[in-house]
Formats: sequence, structure tokens, C-alpha cells
Amino acid sequence: MRKNLLIAQSGGPTAAINATLAGVVERALTSSEVGGIYGARFGIKGVLKDDIVDLGEPLTDPKQLGHLMHTPAAALGSCRMKLPAPGEAPDLYDAIFKTFAKWNIGYFVYIGGNDSMDTVQKLSACAEDRNCGVRMMGAPKTIDNDLCGMDHSPGFGSAAKYIATTFSELWCDCRVYDVPAVTIVEVMGRHVGWLTASSALARVTGDAPHLIYLPEIPFEEERFLADVRGQLEKNDAVIVAVSEGVRRPDGSFVGEEGQNGVTDVFGHKYLSGAGQVLESLVREKVGCKARSIDLSLMQRCSAHLASSVDLREARLLGGTALDRALAGGTGQMSVLRRLSNSPYSVEYDTIPVEEAANLEKFVPREWINEEGNFVTLDMMQYLVPLIDGSFGSETRRGMPVHFFAPKAHRQDSEA
Amino acid sequence: MRKNLLIAQSGGPTAAINATLAGVVERALTSSEVGGIYGARFGIKGVLKDDIVDLGEPLTDPKQLGHLMHTPAAALGSCRMKLPAPGEAPDLYDAIFKTFAKWNIGYFVYIGGNDSMDTVQKLSACAEDRNCGVRMMGAPKTIDNDLCGMDHSPGFGSAAKYIATTFSELWCDCRVYDVPAVTIVEVMGRHVGWLTASSALARVTGDAPHLIYLPEIPFEEERFLADVRGQLEKNDAVIVAVSEGVRRPDGSFVGEEGQNGVTDVFGHKYLSGAGQVLESLVREKVGCKARSIDLSLMQRCSAHLASSVDLREARLLGGTALDRALAGGTGQMSVLRRLSNSPYSVEYDTIPVEEAANLEKFVPREWINEEGNFVTLDMMQYLVPLIDGSFGSETRRGMPVHFFAPKAHRQDSEA
Repeated sequence: MRKNLLIAQSGGPTAAINATLAGVVERALTSSEVGGIYGARFGIKGVLKDDIVDLGEPLTDPKQLGHLMHTPAAALGSCRMKLPAPGEAPDLYDAIFKTFAKWNIGYFVYIGGNDSMDTVQKLSACAEDRNCGVRMMGAPKTIDNDLCGMDHSPGFGSAAKYIATTFSELWCDCRVYDVPAVTIVEVMGRHVGWLTASSALARVTGDAPHLIYLPEIPFEEERFLADVRGQLEKNDAVIVAVSEGVRRPDGSFVGEEGQNGVTDVFGHKYLSGAGQVLESLVREKVGCKARSIDLSLMQRCSAHLASSVDLREARLLGGTALDRALAGGTGQMSVLRRLSNSPYSVEYDTIPVEEAANLEKFVPREWINEEGNFVTLDMMQYLVPLIDGSFGSETRRGMPVHFFAPKAHRQDSEA
Repeated sequence: MRKNLLIAQSGGPTAAINATLAGVVERALTSSEVGGIYGARFGIKGVLKDDIVDLGEPLTDPKQLGHLMHTPAAALGSCRMKLPAPGEAPDLYDAIFKTFAKWNIGYFVYIGGNDSMDTVQKLSACAEDRNCGVRMMGAPKTIDNDLCGMDHSPGFGSAAKYIATTFSELWCDCRVYDVPAVTIVEVMGRHVGWLTASSALARVTGDAPHLIYLPEIPFEEERFLADVRGQLEKNDAVIVAVSEGVRRPDGSFVGEEGQNGVTDVFGHKYLSGAGQVLESLVREKVGCKARSIDLSLMQRCSAHLASSVDLREARLLGGTALDRALAGGTGQMSVLRRLSNSPYSVEYDTIPVEEAANLEKFVPREWINEEGNFVTLDMMQYLVPLIDGSFGSETRRGMPVHFFAPKAHRQDSEA
């Protein structure tokens, strides 16, 4: 008897997570073993609350599937929810498996990062205990590139391409006046520096960024100021890339300083990012014009700048996850391994999900220069192939065309 | 005897100001009356300090001219300098006209906004007084779209396309969680709301923004909060576009509130934008998740998202300015007039520079809805043709290719 497929998306959105969804659907459409294709809305919450939509109908249309590929963020909605251990919350697991049974699910693909792989691990152990026959697969995504067990994660390449392009354009902008000025650009990455490192790609076409600070290296104020002063001797316009997660040698976040007792008119603490703190520092101690820019959500949702390499890999990782489930696998995550840089090639495989769940991959020390203020050529060679291709998105009247998932009956939402 | 051409760029950078430079150069290359083609670095400052580069050599290469078209910001550098009246500073004008004479300049094209047109006006009056035969032309640019005497200004369409695309992508991102959340996006525009209004273009493909606040309408806190609460009844995710320049009924900038006595760890006042102030307001008074995003310099330098309509018009406005100078004109600015919306067509002309200098064009009241929290269909129809075309920039290894102007002998810079 044919079983149905259920897919859900989890964690922070990326420009490629929908390409992975498209890849799973595409593989399902060519399989005689898969019956219906369903999506759970808002990640595992949708499974828990039986908030399920039929994806077969809209996505058998190749045009809609194409729009989905180029739509940023999670078309099914997402959540940030860590499941308790099965023994601690049997009712919750009962509800989840009730939904699986109700919809006759044989294959569940959860697209997410290292926290979401923890969910896959728990569900797959639970499914085996219950002997219910649902095969649980993870498909990776994260702009942070911190997933273990694979060369790089889908979503990262597109964010890297946005960051690199933006730095190259900011370099054109920030150098127009003949006045010394320091621009600090804050990039996402609370624990790992991959995204901030990708700003170095802008050096392929221009002279910025001049300095790069990652969370992997303790941030020393005096050293930073000396670095900036040194750069200002050579250039009027200096651009600095800094991870939101840089920390002082004592482990405290640089980006917390601004909150230190400073309140706004409502008595709220100011939430000052690392970029704003360094901006104040430069203005005060160096005494030149300083500005900070936060790349904010744009770095994770700019699908119009998506890397075509990234979207292709994201799609194939979705297909690989379902493929392995169809072959009997469960408790696995699809991964890719780099075979060569030039010509760039990768191979696809799956690994046990516990090799990725809850783990983080840091930037290796040898890919950061000795001074701790830039990356090495090895890092550049790792990054370059990931952003290849021209600019993405189909357009209609000059605007990108996006896919929006059908909405089931709207259920009461939980905060 | 053939005379030489001098070009300079002034004011804030845009994604199209180099297309205008390319248009002037292109026209000069086909003229038998123009000898050498020179650029002054950092606007009128370069003329004053004799900081002149030869543009003929790099830009006779059509490939380089093409790269210039797609390079954001001012390739020659820019300045923000208002000339004193000629009678007040004769030495300064002597220095400027000495440079014109030294380089045998017959045609000077100054690309800039309403302040820069003030410079053209003064120089052209002065040139007539001195009977030196230099013809002074202005070519328009400003992302703000506040130039009088023309339908819209080059640079605006590309910024509008960036803003519209970004709102459409933020809409995909901000709606992924089933939690009520308000996202405030601050857009440039200290006095006029054209840029913020262009966020409405994202409604062509999605449901955001839900609310738009322009500087032309006094900003009332209670009304804003009622608007937000009303939207939250219909949607979990609400996106608000706000101009940096919105003001209270008493004329004070909303964006100044955050500075009110609040200082950072160095004793500096916090420079809080309108977006941050509204974010605090929503969190405090509505009590839901709130976030603010500042589109910062990206909205003026994202050449990879430039509107092809805008680049084409910017180029032709450059050509028109030189064309009129070659025909004997001086003290003029090139303009365009819209002939029809569908099919979209414009015509090119020039007007006396005093019809634009120092004036500002505001959003007409009838293009803002009665409630003052969105724009009308007339505004949409005005905006739609300006962002047309697919995404721009030639790429090499996935990165945009930019043109960098030659540097003359580096002179001592002034702060």
C-alpha cells in the first residue's frame, strides 16, 4: 500500500530552504511508492496541531514548483521548538504520531539546522519504539554553515553571495568622499564566523573589506583600534566586517555593551549590536567619521541574489533525503561532500542524524590569518565556488515572482 | 578650435549616477567638437584643487563604459559643498576658472541634485560675467526624486526597485512564524516620501507593506498605534514602511526621540532612527514582538538590482545635457517628461537650472490615502513603469563587475 509524504520546515528562514522543499516534492512526483504529498505548517508545531496542507495540487504545476525554488524563507512556515525527550512528554509524542497515522504518513522529511536534526533524531527513535513504520529524514539548511558532517550547508551560499555583493557595492559607495571614514558592517553569526568571512569575496572585485572579525577569535579593543588606525593610513575609506557574535577575551559579547544600563524613553534597554558598539568606539577613540550598517534579515532572504549553485544543491539534498527514505532509511540527514574545487564538484550521501544534531562547525583557526583580522587564501578557495552563477529570480513587471503555500483552516496560534 | 569636456559628480551617490556619466562620455565620443574628456575628482572640489583625471583613455573601451553603467555610487568621487555667492569669494571662483582655462574646458557637466544645480547656476552666471565661454550644464540625479521640473529623477527608479524587492522578500521572511510580530522598515527621505512610497510596489506580488508613513503627513503616535492594532487583527505579520524624516504635528522629527538625553558608554547621544523609535513604541504599547530594519546605504548603491529603465534614462539625460551645451546652451539642466504610462514613454529636454536649484518636489496629498497611512492607485501607476526590467549587472564568478576611475596624483584631502 502506498504511503503519503509529509514535509515540514524549521528554524531560521534562508533563501534556499524552499529549493529543498521543491527537491523533495520533485522526487516524490516521480515515485510510484509515494501517494499524497502534504506539508505541515509552522514546522513540527503543524504536526502536533494537525495543521496540514495538500502540496500535491499546487506543486504538480512545474511553473509553481519553479516559483517555489526562487521564493525566500519557509513557504510552509517555520518554528523554533525543541522537543522534550520522549519519556518526558508522552502526550506530545502521541499527538504527533496521531497526525502521522491520520494522514497515513510513511515518510517524514524535516528541513532544518542542527536543532531540527535533534527533532528528527527523537522522532526516528520514537517511531522505531512504536514500530509505526514512519521513516524520518532530515534535510539540511542553515545560512550559518555550522552543520557538521557536510562540506557546507544549503542556504549559506546564497547568504554569502548577498554579503559579498553588498560589500562590493558598499565599497563603491563608501569611497566617494575624500574624508576619512570607517564603515562597520555587522553580519549574522552568533557562534560561528562563516557568513562574516564570506565578505572577503568582495576582495575579488574591490578593496573592501579591509578587516574581518569572527567569533572564533577573542576580540581585543586595543588591537581593533590599532588595526583601524593602520588601515586609515593607507585608505580614506575603511570597511570592517564584524560578526554579531564577537566576544571579548572574558567571553562577554561585544554587542551587549550598548545595553549596559542605557534605556530609551520607555525605560527599555537599548539593544545595541556589535556594529553599533564598534562605531561608537571608532568615533570616540579614532575621532573620524564612523557609521554602522546591519545587514539584518536581508542577508537571509535576498532570493533575487541567490546563488544558483546553492539552489541546485539545496534541491538535490531534498531529493536525496526522500530517496534514502524510499530505500528504507530512517534517522538520516542528507549531506554533500566536495570532491574538487576546480572544476567544482560534489557528491551526495546521507549520514546518521546524530552526527549533525546539536553540534556546531566552527571556522578552523588556520583559515583565519595570524593577526586574527582577516581570512586566508584557503578560506577564499573554499568560498568562491559557492556563490557562482548570475542573479536569480524570475521577474514580472520588474518584481520577483514568489510562491505562497495554500493555507489550511487557520488554527488558533500559539505564541 | 576644439574645446575639452569636464564632468563631475556631486551629492549623495546613487545606482544610476555613473550611467549619466557614461551617457555624457558616450555623446562626447561621437562629437567632432569635443576634444579631451576629463573628470574632476570629488565634485567641484576637484575643479577647485585641479584634481583632474583623463577619462578618454579608459572609457573609449566600450567594455569599460558598460561596466561604468552598472557601477553604483560616483566613480569620480563626490562632495557636499555649496559654493558661496561669487561676490563673497572671488578667490575661490578664480581658482575654479583657472582650472577651466588650464585644461581648455569648453563644456562642464555637473551631475547632481538640487544643491548641485545651485552650483551650476552660480558658475554659469559667473562664466557669462567673465565672458570665458565655458558652457555650464547640469544633469540630474537623486534617489529622493525631489527634483522639480521633471517627472522623476534618475537614481530614484533603481532605489525604488531595491526597496520594492526588499519589502517583497521581507514579507516572505516575516510571516514564517505563527506569532504576532511587527516589522518596521526605515527608508531614506528626510523631507520627501517618494522612496518610502515605493515600498507599496511590493503589494503587486505580496501583502506587505501594510502601512506606509511619509514625511508629508504629520505623524500621530496614537493613530499609528491604532493602525498597527487594526492590522494585527487581520494578520500575524505586519510590515510598516516609515520615512526617516517623519515628524510629529509639532514639527519635531520622530527619529530624534531616541537621542533625547540617552547616551552610550562614552557619553555620546544615541542616534536612534524613526524605525527604532517606532519599534520601541510597538513593543511598549502594543506588547507584541517588534523589530526594526534600516535599509541604510544598500537602498542607494544596490546596482545589481538597478532598474534598466532608470539606467537607460540616466544615460540619455547625460547625453542630452552635453547635446544642449554643444548646441550653445548654458545654465540648463536636462529633464524628462512622461508622455504616457502604457506604453510607458518619455521625452527629453532641458530647462533653465533655476527652475530646479534649491527647490524640492513633495508627494502630492492626493497620492496619499485619506487616513495618511498608505498611498493611492495614482501613486502606484506612477511608480510601476520605473522599476521595470530584469536584474542588472554583468557578473564574473558570481560577483558584479565594477568600473573604478583612474586616480590622478593624490592631493591632500580636506575634511
